[in-house]
Amino acid sequence: MIEKKTFAVGVDVGATTIKAGIVDKKGKILEQWTSETKANKGPAVVMQQIILTVDSLFKREGNKKACFGVGVGMPGTVDPREGVVRYPPNFADWKEVQVVAGLQKAIGLPVRIENDANAAAIGEAKYGAPKTARDFLFVIWGSGVGGGVILDRKLYRGSNGGAGEIGHISIDYDGRQCNCGSKGCIESYIGQRYLSKRTKEILEAAPNDGFPSKIHDLVEGNLNKIEPATISRAAEDGDATAIAILQEAGELLGYALASAVNLLDVRIVVIGGGISAVPSFVYTAIENSLRSRVLKPHKPGVRVVRSELGNTAGMIGAASLAM
Amino acid sequence: MIEKKTFAVGVDVGATTIKAGIVDKKGKILEQWTSETKANKGPAVVMQQIILTVDSLFKREGNKKACFGVGVGMPGTVDPREGVVRYPPNFADWKEVQVVAGLQKAIGLPVRIENDANAAAIGEAKYGAPKTARDFLFVIWGSGVGGGVILDRKLYRGSNGGAGEIGHISIDYDGRQCNCGSKGCIESYIGQRYLSKRTKEILEAAPNDGFPSKIHDLVEGNLNKIEPATISRAAEDGDATAIAILQEAGELLGYALASAVNLLDVRIVVIGGGISAVPSFVYTAIENSLRSRVLKPHKPGVRVVRSELGNTAGMIGAASLAM
Repeated sequence: MIEKKTFAVGVDVGATTIKAGIVDKKGKILEQWTSETKANKGPAVVMQQIILTVDSLFKREGNKKACFGVGVGMPGTVDPREGVVRYPPNFADWKEVQVVAGLQKAIGLPVRIENDANAAAIGEAKYGAPKTARDFLFVIWGSGVGGGVILDRKLYRGSNGGAGEIGHISIDYDGRQCNCGSKGCIESYIGQRYLSKRTKEILEAAPNDGFPSKIHDLVEGNLNKIEPATISRAAEDGDATAIAILQEAGELLGYALASAVNLLDVRIVVIGGGISAVPSFVYTAIENSLRSRVLKPHKPGVRVVRSELGNTAGMIGAASLAM
Repeated sequence: MIEKKTFAVGVDVGATTIKAGIVDKKGKILEQWTSETKANKGPAVVMQQIILTVDSLFKREGNKKACFGVGVGMPGTVDPREGVVRYPPNFADWKEVQVVAGLQKAIGLPVRIENDANAAAIGEAKYGAPKTARDFLFVIWGSGVGGGVILDRKLYRGSNGGAGEIGHISIDYDGRQCNCGSKGCIESYIGQRYLSKRTKEILEAAPNDGFPSKIHDLVEGNLNKIEPATISRAAEDGDATAIAILQEAGELLGYALASAVNLLDVRIVVIGGGISAVPSFVYTAIENSLRSRVLKPHKPGVRVVRSELGNTAGMIGAASLAM
């Protein structure tokens, strides 16, 4: 008797956490497992971590025979056909690893792989927000700024699978030095590290007038502990500094998106990633700034919306690769 | 007996000239006719001009029965399915015109229509430079900066047919005011008018040291007569001012293209349009600047090449629509 397949495992391998889940055909997460990535221990340890995480899931959910397979999303240059991951940023000693071959052997199920941002865009396209949108830009706003381009409900990969690098649209050719070597990339203005650093700088420079920012309270005076979630929470509490910083970040993101919309004529932008949990006024700021800068025919149609799947888009998208 | 179809007519309707040609199945122009566009006389006059131009071609070449049909490239918002052209810039009193219906009735042959930049990109994709390139960006560098995105040898139209607006990628969110309402669009730095104006300004501000720029000679002292062709010619003659201006224009174009390449992962850029006749050092400048700003995986593959079809890409591409 042939066992009916009912689910796949999706694994989202980030530099800080590995998130794995059992995902059914409707994109629903039935079980989820998260562990800290030992990214500085080299590829062998990370591969072992992925295998153990998948095993843990099977031990809890049981029926391995009902599983289509395992999909993995990973940062770096990912070749889905060869099953190879090259140079994922922030993973020590990782040059070129045969991820698919290694995992398939250990797990005994078909394994598919995709770049993490692409996997998230695929997840969002299949199960997420824009039910009416055949084409949209997916932006992952987190420690960096990544993304994917969905055209006709399919991922647009470009000539060599490297498309969708929304974070490296430059908004100023003579602007901030980006880690990538270019200048003015939007990532270098609004990525997690920059936002936290800039907030710290502003607070340090602010006059001590007896009305400290709420951010001070939230990090108990240690400004090195500022994270985007801190800024969001302070903004929700009405803190002027936090609001101004997020407002500016939204405006700048809108400028970068305007170049993308003019080039692609894709009018819906879906924002996911860790920082996508910002208050809704930031979405208004992004959309207004985008609309002010796109060509006239695009103006009425542009929409900037929050990802439906949030931080689970990558895991769900990865699982869908195996189904 | 059924007459064998051997050619189509391509018409490239610009704000200054209408170029029409008889184009065979290999993309070769057999006959060509150019006339000045009476763009300020309203749509009825322009439509009549197109009809007369096509008629003149048939009178010279003869066999109308061997013609597949007529393809027309026009600026503005073009809806190829409805056959409508809306608001072409620099055409007086032109709101929304049923171009296809009007021409078909008068000419008695099938008529197809496309945006002029798209038509040129299609022409280049079918008969032009990058024989090995399935995907490339086509840039029209002329009075404005336009373009088209060719993916898998087909024109990428975007959600609403408005894709490929390479000229409105911004290189500086706080930069030059563009006619489109945005700031820092590459068109506002390197489009024909800007190049001519900037050259004039530089020459006016230059010290009168007895070694005037060759540009002075070429325009016989009338700096209002400077055109990109003048600057190109002076640069070819080794004029330092002309070389510096074109070098800078190339660098800036490279910065804009870097954002596009990072987003699309399309590594070949083909440059056509009136200013594409600039000396080859400008192509080197564009390519170097592009390579310096794209993400690492793209660096080895990026190429910037001159259009093979030059100013005839639009006409040939338009004709190919009808074949």
